[in-house]
Amino acid sequence: MSSSYRNFRNNVPWLILFLEAVFIGLFYFLFSDGGASRSSISYAAFQDVNHMVIFGFGFFLTFLRRYGFSSTGFNLLIIVLGVQCSVLTEGLLGFLLQRPREDGLKRLTKATLSMTAVVISTGAVLGKTNPMQLILMTVVEMLVFQMSRFVNSTFLRVPDNIGMMHVHLFGAYFGLAVSSRFSEPPPRSEKDASTPKSDLFSMLGTLFLWVFWPSFNSVLAEDNKSKVIYNTYFALAASAVTAFVLSALTTKDGKFRMSHIHSAVLAGGVAVGCAAHRIEYPWIAMILGLLASVITVLGSYCLQRCLNPALKIHDASGVHFTFGLPAVLGALAQVVLLLIKNWTNLSSLGYLVLVHIGAFCLTISVALITGFITGLILNLRLFKTTPVSKYFDDQFYWEVSF
Amino acid sequence: MSSSYRNFRNNVPWLILFLEAVFIGLFYFLFSDGGASRSSISYAAFQDVNHMVIFGFGFFLTFLRRYGFSSTGFNLLIIVLGVQCSVLTEGLLGFLLQRPREDGLKRLTKATLSMTAVVISTGAVLGKTNPMQLILMTVVEMLVFQMSRFVNSTFLRVPDNIGMMHVHLFGAYFGLAVSSRFSEPPPRSEKDASTPKSDLFSMLGTLFLWVFWPSFNSVLAEDNKSKVIYNTYFALAASAVTAFVLSALTTKDGKFRMSHIHSAVLAGGVAVGCAAHRIEYPWIAMILGLLASVITVLGSYCLQRCLNPALKIHDASGVHFTFGLPAVLGALAQVVLLLIKNWTNLSSLGYLVLVHIGAFCLTISVALITGFITGLILNLRLFKTTPVSKYFDDQFYWEVSF
Amino acid sequence: MSSSYRNFRNNVPWLILFLEAVFIGLFYFLFSDGGASRSSISYAAFQDVNHMVIFGFGFFLTFLRRYGFSSTGFNLLIIVLGVQCSVLTEGLLGFLLQRPREDGLKRLTKATLSMTAVVISTGAVLGKTNPMQLILMTVVEMLVFQMSRFVNSTFLRVPDNIGMMHVHLFGAYFGLAVSSRFSEPPPRSEKDASTPKSDLFSMLGTLFLWVFWPSFNSVLAEDNKSKVIYNTYFALAASAVTAFVLSALTTKDGKFRMSHIHSAVLAGGVAVGCAAHRIEYPWIAMILGLLASVITVLGSYCLQRCLNPALKIHDASGVHFTFGLPAVLGALAQVVLLLIKNWTNLSSLGYLVLVHIGAFCLTISVALITGFITGLILNLRLFKTTPVSKYFDDQFYWEVSF
Repeated sequence: MSSSYRNFRNNVPWLILFLEAVFIGLFYFLFSDGGASRSSISYAAFQDVNHMVIFGFGFFLTFLRRYGFSSTGFNLLIIVLGVQCSVLTEGLLGFLLQRPREDGLKRLTKATLSMTAVVISTGAVLGKTNPMQLILMTVVEMLVFQMSRFVNSTFLRVPDNIGMMHVHLFGAYFGLAVSSRFSEPPPRSEKDASTPKSDLFSMLGTLFLWVFWPSFNSVLAEDNKSKVIYNTYFALAASAVTAFVLSALTTKDGKFRMSHIHSAVLAGGVAVGCAAHRIEYPWIAMILGLLASVITVLGSYCLQRCLNPALKIHDASGVHFTFGLPAVLGALAQVVLLLIKNWTNLSSLGYLVLVHIGAFCLTISVALITGFITGLILNLRLFKTTPVSKYFDDQFYWEVSF
Repeated sequence: MSSSYRNFRNNVPWLILFLEAVFIGLFYFLFSDGGASRSSISYAAFQDVNHMVIFGFGFFLTFLRRYGFSSTGFNLLIIVLGVQCSVLTEGLLGFLLQRPREDGLKRLTKATLSMTAVVISTGAVLGKTNPMQLILMTVVEMLVFQMSRFVNSTFLRVPDNIGMMHVHLFGAYFGLAVSSRFSEPPPRSEKDASTPKSDLFSMLGTLFLWVFWPSFNSVLAEDNKSKVIYNTYFALAASAVTAFVLSALTTKDGKFRMSHIHSAVLAGGVAVGCAAHRIEYPWIAMILGLLASVITVLGSYCLQRCLNPALKIHDASGVHFTFGLPAVLGALAQVVLLLIKNWTNLSSLGYLVLVHIGAFCLTISVALITGFITGLILNLRLFKTTPVSKYFDDQFYWEVSF
Repeated sequence: MSSSYRNFRNNVPWLILFLEAVFIGLFYFLFSDGGASRSSISYAAFQDVNHMVIFGFGFFLTFLRRYGFSSTGFNLLIIVLGVQCSVLTEGLLGFLLQRPREDGLKRLTKATLSMTAVVISTGAVLGKTNPMQLILMTVVEMLVFQMSRFVNSTFLRVPDNIGMMHVHLFGAYFGLAVSSRFSEPPPRSEKDASTPKSDLFSMLGTLFLWVFWPSFNSVLAEDNKSKVIYNTYFALAASAVTAFVLSALTTKDGKFRMSHIHSAVLAGGVAVGCAAHRIEYPWIAMILGLLASVITVLGSYCLQRCLNPALKIHDASGVHFTFGLPAVLGALAQVVLLLIKNWTNLSSLGYLVLVHIGAFCLTISVALITGFITGLILNLRLFKTTPVSKYFDDQFYWEVSF
């Protein structure tokens, strides 16, 4: 191994250790009351989200031939770091603003939900970042996302459960902006591909995400949980169906493509996230799911051929069309539903629509700008970027025995 | 790819799309009240069943060497189609008969439970049907099973939770009848076999099913849920133990055979389904589980050597002995338990026994007859049956990269 | 296959069948009241533990290249046998001592928790025992562990939920003592190694264990469940972070080693088990998790190089440092926390500390002594020990097709 790699060894563990020490120190000052009070969130609901993030996303990203260890391992690492970081930031904010304390389980759940943004972003740079870059990205993105949510809820008065649902939007565009600063891998790299077995592992993660998505959307909903669950289920169902339709229509031989299925079956859940509590009838959720799946599969076709080469973005696991586009659709749908519902009351309508569009634009622009800056910083020499020849390779970070 | 395949491409997506459009349209007319009311079924219970069907059955069927994508993918496809179809049929029936509305989550749970029948049937024709045949089979079987349940509950007054437990019986015999109409694969096909890795994936699905089976049996139970759970657990435990005993006794070298374990560990759960709420003491459930496992392993031995070749049935994943025979045993056990409990009251006994036997015979004969007809229809030229040489092969339906 | 193997076939099934018959008989005499009463443990909590033991541990142990069938299959077998055995022993004890009856679900949950000891012990002898030895070990260990818990709770007045948390300690040292009596495999056996795919399956099990560990620690906690969950989560998070730090620091090239991650991410959960209900602030749990991870990774380094060769112990899946050392640390931490909390009240303090240290010493010495004796017995000629050349090989017990 080259000397540059030994240098890499010299900093990653110390960085992690430093962060963990800071976390423990801050926990000592901020949370000296324990988390014993009665929680407004059930343990089962937290577990579903935890399961989804640790297990679902971990395996969702294992589709690369030689990157299974990093996909599942680094996913665990950044989630545990990010959750601690997020709990602290919320605690600090609450302390500074003298807000009433939330109980432990609710803190954890919100932190885990926020981590979805980071996990999605890592999907965009999958196989191209070293652990040090990943960790820095996690911390920065976590802080920025918290800030963006804080601005949304304080100045635009977006309720917390809606603000949280911008997590896909934020994660996808932050990740894309970061990935635009990384060198592109060679076009037909042998390692940037999947095998049937790795695709099956990825399917395992996808099915987990699919099954737990209603939990994800409903965990912060307050009064109409079962409506959110019901709508999310039907949106997911419609998008799963449409995924198969469009996959067969867009591939050369009319066969199904696994990567289409992986991304499009989840599109409905993403799209319906912001609006699920407002949708009155399941058929609306189904149409939304169908549309989400359509833009995912068509998006994967167009983006990979036109937009990405033009912008020199290499979106390793397709987060743009899997999470980004459906989230945009969801934000749009939310506004349309608002328009339909309140069109008699034009005075408040204008205000409401402005707020929603404002929150959307704020989230997406903060994500793009800070993502771009983060990408620039991560590519400083200091961080020993992974050479392109070592992209998508577990062996660069892990002891692998064959 | 041959032109016949391109034709296949020309109809599958449109068929799915047509179905989905019909579903959305019917949802628009039938369910314009949303699903927001308080549910009698907890979200956790629904999740268990959903998890089991999507994830458990999906991976349970991945044992074939080159059929993992289709097993998990098509399983998801037919479940989401079938659940929508089933929710609609129930809604339509309720509308026509002016029954009180059920809440959204209960509808979904019952639809998911019903889908088990279809999933089991697809096991019998695993690797032999193209997606178009699968989808048609799903819709037809769903409708027939709903009808059979409706007849059972209306004319024979079988309670809904018991009627639902005939799902294994119906699924297995419907599947067998369908599969009898498909050409048999060549006897020692290289593709009709498992590898250690595919068996491990299948074990993953099996363990999921095993763990969630008590949820499955108890989800519709009303007053004695914990008794059902307790009895199901012990039946499953006894059948798992017996599976190992009989596998070692029936194989040539006295080794264990993975396919025995896969099917026999679940037999207890199937057998105890109808009777779990009636069983007073765990030892009865254990004996039932033990017997179920015995008939599964012996059944797999006898059926595969004698009955199947004689009837020209090729039961790809052994649904006859995994789900069919234990379900027959369960129906029998239910009658015996009834006899023991009510033998003092001979007047009502005769009626009760007749009703149970009637429901059993009705279910099985409807399954066999409609399954046979469905099999005939699916083998029409119109549906472009898969050539025998392409059986058990993902590459015929999926883009597979090695 | 040699004649000795055929003999093996002649006894294993009959032994299992005999045990199952005894179980059913005892169930008949002991549990003739069913399990229908209202349970103090929710079904979801039981499910989490059940899931963890069956699925999590089953796949946690699949890291060996050619031992996946045995890892998952035998795990299921011994758990179902052990749970029945444990339920019976508790029932027998309750009957003899005229204790009030516990409800069915609580019995099952406690039995499943106890089985963790056996599952951990089997990890120490993974790949070296034949099914007959495994089954005998299960029954003996179950009985001894129940006895040890009984002595702890009756004479030392250790509460039941704390006594149960000694399960890791007991399991690890019992397993080590047993494994010291088995022949060592040749140093660089090709079969005693992992492949990337088998490591990924093992990661799947590890993530399951990681996610469900808070359920495991909190299931028997009575009044401060959410505190236990909160502390366990943060201990796990800190140990996951530390696992990556130390793995990179201790390997030759500064790379991560999967086996470090597998064992060290769980260390925090083990260490915090006994003390989680006493820890007031999350930072204490985090420090405990960090320390647990440190002794796990350093332990794996020291033990495998120094202690194990000296004592001629071959600890197949590293249970000593994965479960043993963190459990010792946890017991120590419990005493330290007690000292800090009660140092003003010196009279009761001495008594309390003595009791805790007594319980700890009792558990560990019972485990070591009975484990050693069990190891001696299992290596009698009667039990047809597996020859060293057949260690770590599914093919010796299973029909495997490649």
